[in-house]
Amino acid sequence: MNVQEYMIELGENARDAARLVAKADTNLKNQALLAMADAIDNSRPALREANAIDLENGRNNGLDAAMLDRLELTDARIDTMIEGLRQVAALPDPVGAINDLKFLPSGIQVGKMRVPLGVIGIIYESRPNVTVEAASLCLKSGNATILRGGSEAINSNKAVAECIQQGLKLAGLPENAVQVVETTDREAVGQMITMPEYVDVIVPRGGKGLIERISRDAKVTVIKHLDGICHVYIDDAADKGKAINVALNAKTHRYGTCNTMETLLVNAGIAAEVLPELAERYQAVGVELRGCERTCELVPFANQASSEDWATEYLAPILAVKIVDTMDEAILHINRYGSHHTDSIITENYTKSRAFLREVDSSSVMVNASTRFADGFEYGLGAEIGISTDKIHARGPVGLDGLTSEKYVVLGDGHIRQ
Amino acid sequence: MNVQEYMIELGENARDAARLVAKADTNLKNQALLAMADAIDNSRPALREANAIDLENGRNNGLDAAMLDRLELTDARIDTMIEGLRQVAALPDPVGAINDLKFLPSGIQVGKMRVPLGVIGIIYESRPNVTVEAASLCLKSGNATILRGGSEAINSNKAVAECIQQGLKLAGLPENAVQVVETTDREAVGQMITMPEYVDVIVPRGGKGLIERISRDAKVTVIKHLDGICHVYIDDAADKGKAINVALNAKTHRYGTCNTMETLLVNAGIAAEVLPELAERYQAVGVELRGCERTCELVPFANQASSEDWATEYLAPILAVKIVDTMDEAILHINRYGSHHTDSIITENYTKSRAFLREVDSSSVMVNASTRFADGFEYGLGAEIGISTDKIHARGPVGLDGLTSEKYVVLGDGHIRQ
Repeated sequence: MNVQEYMIELGENARDAARLVAKADTNLKNQALLAMADAIDNSRPALREANAIDLENGRNNGLDAAMLDRLELTDARIDTMIEGLRQVAALPDPVGAINDLKFLPSGIQVGKMRVPLGVIGIIYESRPNVTVEAASLCLKSGNATILRGGSEAINSNKAVAECIQQGLKLAGLPENAVQVVETTDREAVGQMITMPEYVDVIVPRGGKGLIERISRDAKVTVIKHLDGICHVYIDDAADKGKAINVALNAKTHRYGTCNTMETLLVNAGIAAEVLPELAERYQAVGVELRGCERTCELVPFANQASSEDWATEYLAPILAVKIVDTMDEAILHINRYGSHHTDSIITENYTKSRAFLREVDSSSVMVNASTRFADGFEYGLGAEIGISTDKIHARGPVGLDGLTSEKYVVLGDGHIRQ
Repeated sequence: MNVQEYMIELGENARDAARLVAKADTNLKNQALLAMADAIDNSRPALREANAIDLENGRNNGLDAAMLDRLELTDARIDTMIEGLRQVAALPDPVGAINDLKFLPSGIQVGKMRVPLGVIGIIYESRPNVTVEAASLCLKSGNATILRGGSEAINSNKAVAECIQQGLKLAGLPENAVQVVETTDREAVGQMITMPEYVDVIVPRGGKGLIERISRDAKVTVIKHLDGICHVYIDDAADKGKAINVALNAKTHRYGTCNTMETLLVNAGIAAEVLPELAERYQAVGVELRGCERTCELVPFANQASSEDWATEYLAPILAVKIVDTMDEAILHINRYGSHHTDSIITENYTKSRAFLREVDSSSVMVNASTRFADGFEYGLGAEIGISTDKIHARGPVGLDGLTSEKYVVLGDGHIRQ
């Protein structure tokens, strides 16, 4: 097979399908989503079988336990896929919504209508449940999708794709609205990210290495999520109880997520009051502390941080801790070492809360709340295809709206320009 | 001079300035804009002198009359620059505005705050007034700017830049908030569009060739405007009077603008009634008609169109005319041959008007209104840095909001994730 020709064929199919999906009405899209859920429910044996082949191959190829775990389609994960499809069907349809329609002095009425982006390419690693998640959000937002999963999951993904296509067919939507790349050749990715004629946006989901590689080579806009180096800054005007609760939650609620706090900044004016108690609480749950010099003086069991620690996303029970003299120093540190993801200030001071909200250059900026809230579901988006640490097009948690654009609509009554 | 090092230096300066401009309050930015207006007013002799050198060089280098005209800084054009600065000062400040702030079930409050993009690179051709226009919009939206004008206008641009810098200085804003590239070396453009560390967005203003070249090579998002191949479709349910008025205005109000109609589509059911009269009106003002076969039967003096005509932006008193059998055929034609810029249907039919609005894939879609309305000022944006025919980030006329992004703000009271 010629990979380039194959990808162009998928691209042409997707463009054709995109036109039909863009104008499909809400009911039709929801019928397809519910039919996909049923198809998956009815195909459990086939899905498990295909997945067993991937797991077997994975074991033979020496995949580690974590990879094998992500690859496995357990019954619970299949349940979650089905539940996810039903939830997306229940979400409001963003397509066609008209906002800000207003009359202008010339007499015309101008507003903005939400429209699909067109064709979305999703590139992801080994988790086969991403196939359903991404396909359902793209379909609901009126887009066609080309899905390129990890080669380890190729058999699972093909089996899932069959259920998706069954659902599309039952609802009378074009089967090419969702296509799974059926080759594991790496060239397929290179081709997909460099054909702007056929693909409008790329959403990569996976490790930082994958995303950096794609961003570097892409000729198509990439909605990207790199690091999650998130901060909590405990201001000297903080309420001590809130500070301890939020700082504990932001680090220990889950260790492996991108919105987990990786560096704690504490104002020198409150450090002695807050830090020793907080450090004991961290120690009690097994979090290793890596502190600046002043931190280590206050917390004898903390290890010495190196400058690398300020720029590290641990995704582990490790926390960097730094004492700063002012809020401005904290903001400078965050904007310099952070990843523009999510950062929170704990303070009771009105003026500082306003300045922090304005000056921290991150996709989510918080006051007196845990960084763990940075999430499409917690923000009320109903779903999330990813979190963007970019500024262009979409920033922060990306839901259905992030997969659409807006065009102007103008209503007149024979109006001409004077 | 090493062009690469020079551009990186400008980039570093811009990044530093961007941080300060982003948090500058509205009053400070307005003071700078008004001081720039005064500086330009007081520097008329110097501006004319610098411009005279460019004009002289242009003549010696054989620039054509149209180029020389665009290059000239007449007193009227200087007045317009001054007026433009005062208008931008009077516009509302988009930065810091918080929208959609709402409480969520967890108790946190989530909203979106408008924030600057950072550093904007503007690449334009010979018109020196663009320098002021672009700089003022970028400053008002809290961004730093690097301006690269055409080499023919280098002396004029430097003189204008001096006025801009005077204004920034007087208001106490960093002079590097607006930098003009002072080399005419073409490598400067190549460097500017491939340094995402220093430049967040590129806005090219100029001919299609320039924009295509930049889009192809850029490693930074480009807010681009390619062709303006705009259509008016006269439906068989159109009001004849409105159809003739709008079709005349859309073509003849101005010939050289991107929102001018280039192809007229007429439903076969109304062609005999509307087209002969309309054709005579066009003929009376000297518009050449290039029609499909059926058009030529109805309009004996029309020339035969070739298939190239459907994809041509004339920017001249020439109009392609095609008779179609259905609205669907018109929509297919527009989506295939158009440039996704602006297209209008003339109809009294409710159902068709809704379908046209939804199905035409253009940045502005209109009902019973002239395509000439597609413009930031007519849409009430107050200003316009360009019109985007893209779907990502900004679409249609781009005003101050298009030069900003939104970040999430989360307000809590010590809330932690359960």
